[in-house]
Amino acid sequence: MSFFKRFERGQMRLGRIEAFSDGVFAVAATLLVLDLRVDHLADVHSVRELGGVLAGQAPKFFSWLISFVIIGKFWLNHHHILGLARHANYGMVWLNLIFLMFQSLVPFPTALMGAFPGNPLAVSLFGVAMAFNTLIFIALHAYILRNLLKPELAGTQDPHIIRKSFAGVVSYLAGAGAAWVHADLAFVIYGLTPLFFIVPPPGRAGAEGQPET
Amino acid sequence: MSFFKRFERGQMRLGRIEAFSDGVFAVAATLLVLDLRVDHLADVHSVRELGGVLAGQAPKFFSWLISFVIIGKFWLNHHHILGLARHANYGMVWLNLIFLMFQSLVPFPTALMGAFPGNPLAVSLFGVAMAFNTLIFIALHAYILRNLLKPELAGTQDPHIIRKSFAGVVSYLAGAGAAWVHADLAFVIYGLTPLFFIVPPPGRAGAEGQPET
Amino acid sequence: MSFFKRFERGQMRLGRIEAFSDGVFAVAATLLVLDLRVDHLADVHSVRELGGVLAGQAPKFFSWLISFVIIGKFWLNHHHILGLARHANYGMVWLNLIFLMFQSLVPFPTALMGAFPGNPLAVSLFGVAMAFNTLIFIALHAYILRNLLKPELAGTQDPHIIRKSFAGVVSYLAGAGAAWVHADLAFVIYGLTPLFFIVPPPGRAGAEGQPET
Amino acid sequence: MSFFKRFERGQMRLGRIEAFSDGVFAVAATLLVLDLRVDHLADVHSVRELGGVLAGQAPKFFSWLISFVIIGKFWLNHHHILGLARHANYGMVWLNLIFLMFQSLVPFPTALMGAFPGNPLAVSLFGVAMAFNTLIFIALHAYILRNLLKPELAGTQDPHIIRKSFAGVVSYLAGAGAAWVHADLAFVIYGLTPLFFIVPPPGRAGAEGQPET
Repeated sequence: MSFFKRFERGQMRLGRIEAFSDGVFAVAATLLVLDLRVDHLADVHSVRELGGVLAGQAPKFFSWLISFVIIGKFWLNHHHILGLARHANYGMVWLNLIFLMFQSLVPFPTALMGAFPGNPLAVSLFGVAMAFNTLIFIALHAYILRNLLKPELAGTQDPHIIRKSFAGVVSYLAGAGAAWVHADLAFVIYGLTPLFFIVPPPGRAGAEGQPET
Repeated sequence: MSFFKRFERGQMRLGRIEAFSDGVFAVAATLLVLDLRVDHLADVHSVRELGGVLAGQAPKFFSWLISFVIIGKFWLNHHHILGLARHANYGMVWLNLIFLMFQSLVPFPTALMGAFPGNPLAVSLFGVAMAFNTLIFIALHAYILRNLLKPELAGTQDPHIIRKSFAGVVSYLAGAGAAWVHADLAFVIYGLTPLFFIVPPPGRAGAEGQPET
Repeated sequence: MSFFKRFERGQMRLGRIEAFSDGVFAVAATLLVLDLRVDHLADVHSVRELGGVLAGQAPKFFSWLISFVIIGKFWLNHHHILGLARHANYGMVWLNLIFLMFQSLVPFPTALMGAFPGNPLAVSLFGVAMAFNTLIFIALHAYILRNLLKPELAGTQDPHIIRKSFAGVVSYLAGAGAAWVHADLAFVIYGLTPLFFIVPPPGRAGAEGQPET
Repeated sequence: MSFFKRFERGQMRLGRIEAFSDGVFAVAATLLVLDLRVDHLADVHSVRELGGVLAGQAPKFFSWLISFVIIGKFWLNHHHILGLARHANYGMVWLNLIFLMFQSLVPFPTALMGAFPGNPLAVSLFGVAMAFNTLIFIALHAYILRNLLKPELAGTQDPHIIRKSFAGVVSYLAGAGAAWVHADLAFVIYGLTPLFFIVPPPGRAGAEGQPET
């Protein structure tokens, strides 16, 4: 059996894949809070001092907010595309693991952007990381549509859906570019991007009312 | 389809929503312990010294205790209200994600209050954060009652339940106010508030004995 | 309805209680590793230096090992006693939450003992914490046996099981006492205690071959 | 009943064992990111400075990448071998707990190798830790094959599978040895090892098309 053929083997339950994925999503999303630390505030005493320090942490809060919404959106769309698959094979499992790998990395560019909100490199790396996450997600989506789509959903999926998904990649990269002009602009673009696909795109006529199981 | 209408789409399984939610609850509740660190105790040697340092950490312990009980109570009531829904739609998923976002934030105001128990701003921010968490939870509860209630539960829910839930918001805000008078009073109010709704309120007659599935 | 009666209400699925509990167990057990940090090793260069520093961390490794086995044993026995219940009620949910609260606390006494292996207070606090965890577990076990036992298991449980479980409490407290004489002795006692109940005690005749569902 | 016989008792559901295992896998894999911290970068300002610091963190990124792939591969193969068991008994539960214990330890040798990429002891300890993880996994696999194999899978498993699995142990130990010659060589060997068994080996004729439940 050829190397690539071996990845088409396997008819695995989706249950444990969802469980592991949900674990990574939940831990990554919740670890974001660790960056809002108070350790280095030890020499703060008065209300005024603490207020000033917290106000200075505003970029960390915005980074946390943007990243949580992005992870939440990925989780929702992940839920959607796994619902399209009739089962999993090894190719899908490895694409999913690579996706989760970069999903679990999200706290790092988030912390970097929060710590250096005025540094174009730090702010643009966030956009590059999110564009990369979106690309791997698109690969996973395309793989499922091509190889594992439930027979009863054949013909219900928008044939241009994959092409349309690149809008997110372009938008995150636009934010990454904007970081070199004005950091605040990048924050705005990053914050708006997940809102475009806040709801998974509908299938074509007829798919609407169906439970996604 | 209008923007808002799109949120009413979707008939998702509750299973993965519960799995992701339980993950966030469990991680947030368990991360609270990270604030009871011993790193900065490195220059402590004798029993007396260690005892003194641990006694000085009492506010951190109280903060941990209060927050764990609050997260536990939210988890229990979340369990209850998701049991009222016949399925999920995108509106509910996003309300739930926003709720989980602020639930995952709990370790931050907890750490702040534990580190600065004498600073009115730190102590009152805890109450404001918990009032905000309660408000989003009420919105999620109201959304389910209005749009997704299981047909067989129609008429079994207390029609004044949402109004009554604001008692928690008021109580947390009272604690936030009390922080500016006396921090210890705020701790007491924060500690007592979750005990009011330690058990989800009963439905109206007839709903009692039913399994909540 | 009286205050205490309200806790007997509710017929909840065990599924989400297990999911939340498993999350707390898994996170608490895995967070233990965070204490084996290398941050403070920054000025180490040669193999000899690193070897010396790692050897000096032996108490942290023993603390990690003992705590992981203890959490694993609690998880296994928790699995066992939840399998005895026909459903959950609010009394059980709150006993379970209090148990999980102190389970999630385990990384703190573990870190304390690992950081101050020669300090009797640090080492004995570990034993007191574990004795307390065992006590709450016993309360949860007794509550289930008294109020929620599956009808088909009636008469299969060892009537002296609760009394026997206090052996663990006594053993942890003996270790806590030994810490004031010799710290190494306490480590040995703490390490041996979970091994006594490594396997949940059998029920009485007839229960052996049954699947625990 | 003899001590060892007691471990053969129990017919436990695999559900909670999978849930706890998935939790530990997900948390351990996601905690790896905590080592890519930016705390110590506080005195970095220009793009050039930040770029230099990030480039200097390359060993930490490679360590993270290798460890995530290794944990992902263990998760996938764990999924596979638990699918072979008809139920769990206490012997399997404890082997699984010991496996998870060392799986949850992975962030420590990863951090050590990332922090001291030029120190042969740090780099070789990573290989020893992974060889040890593989050994315990082999023990779990062998235990399931010998004692808990589903009757319908009898004769479908490669009788030499356990012997072949030692290739991973040998490869990790070769990397550990190579670390004393040239650290980069060890990184390459560690990175290639999980790729050998990226897909669980097929059973013998006939087992291919079967769903793994």
